[in-house]
Amino acid sequence: MIRWIAFDADDTLWENEKYYHKGQVLLAALLEPYQPNEVVEATLLQIETSNLPWYGYGIKSFGLSMIETAIQLSNGEVGSKEINSILNHLRYMLSQPAELLPGVLETIDILLQKDFRLMVITKGDLLDQERKLTNSKLQKYFEAYEVVSDKLDETYARILSRYDILPNEFLMVGNSLRSDILPVIKIGGYGVYIPHTFTWEHEQVSGTSSHADGYFQIESFKELPGVIEKIKTL
Amino acid sequence: MIRWIAFDADDTLWENEKYYHKGQVLLAALLEPYQPNEVVEATLLQIETSNLPWYGYGIKSFGLSMIETAIQLSNGEVGSKEINSILNHLRYMLSQPAELLPGVLETIDILLQKDFRLMVITKGDLLDQERKLTNSKLQKYFEAYEVVSDKLDETYARILSRYDILPNEFLMVGNSLRSDILPVIKIGGYGVYIPHTFTWEHEQVSGTSSHADGYFQIESFKELPGVIEKIKTL
Repeated sequence: MIRWIAFDADDTLWENEKYYHKGQVLLAALLEPYQPNEVVEATLLQIETSNLPWYGYGIKSFGLSMIETAIQLSNGEVGSKEINSILNHLRYMLSQPAELLPGVLETIDILLQKDFRLMVITKGDLLDQERKLTNSKLQKYFEAYEVVSDKLDETYARILSRYDILPNEFLMVGNSLRSDILPVIKIGGYGVYIPHTFTWEHEQVSGTSSHADGYFQIESFKELPGVIEKIKTL
Repeated sequence: MIRWIAFDADDTLWENEKYYHKGQVLLAALLEPYQPNEVVEATLLQIETSNLPWYGYGIKSFGLSMIETAIQLSNGEVGSKEINSILNHLRYMLSQPAELLPGVLETIDILLQKDFRLMVITKGDLLDQERKLTNSKLQKYFEAYEVVSDKLDETYARILSRYDILPNEFLMVGNSLRSDILPVIKIGGYGVYIPHTFTWEHEQVSGTSSHADGYFQIESFKELPGVIEKIKTL
């Protein structure tokens, strides 16, 4: 029944959020003379969220929101030195190699042997996501690589229609219930949720359960072929 | 012979560069105590160009490069006030309506009546380009809307292959010889160049001519149906 498996990229195939987390730590250190850590974290999240409709997802948006937070929380006291550290951190983030999560390569190989067709559906910055795909050396395994501005149910519906995939032929794997799993369930596809140590607060949803919402949850990428076998027998 | 017509978006369908130009003027004013206008312009271009492989195209990249230029040229003397004006200008740019260039709507109508299939191929920020397309109300006329990280000959080859288009069935219309015209000619398609008053220096190429390089040049969007008739008789 399932013919296509789509993967989220950041924190599903490779590490990502940990570099954002380092950015938060840097910002808290820069703003230490002005505000406690918790205030910095909460304000950054609030500014990032309110900037989302304008900036979208990705490292550049994060950097611009960091700068805005620094100015706001220091009451305009931060100067070029602090802003420059933020710019340098963006460069650091943009030059990280795509560090594959454990089990990704072997599991993709198993799935290809079972004749599944594979694609990636990711949010974020177009150029940066392309850079990471090239850098990951995973490109050859995927028939499609879709960078989208948001992951809503209509986003998935559009992609399925583009590739002539029926919802019940489609399974999405990702670390965000909000973006990877719930919208796919909503349009009639399958979702496998693999939580990651770091997940951005914006992506968190509460009050869901795999039982009530009809998705499957595993602890590691390696369990994917197993859970797919289980879905096939349902 | 020509079945598909693809359009660049910024400064081909709607105004764009003029808002970047306003940003340059703002930056020159902010840095007036430190450096003359010419130095600001040249340094911004140099910083934007060196950031392109990291940041890609678009408004957020422009903003980050403006901030970097401000810090560098003031020797770290600019502070939160100046950086804040830059952030505000980005918001201003991101909230501009898509202001159609003269003749766009009528000409698209004529081309559709002649049964051409239409698409848009644009660089820049994914979310911002989607916002402008929605805002322009042109969405319904295009069968495809491709936001790409760069416009190289392989980019066009990939898009043509995705839509099953032969190069000689494809005509690209745009205001950048470097990005819209020359790569399309190189893969065997047709190019119609419509210069715009403002074209970013990075997009300029010298030493080309429509005669030697095999593209067509018109002064206004309205001349497009006419030049296509001319191409058909070649």
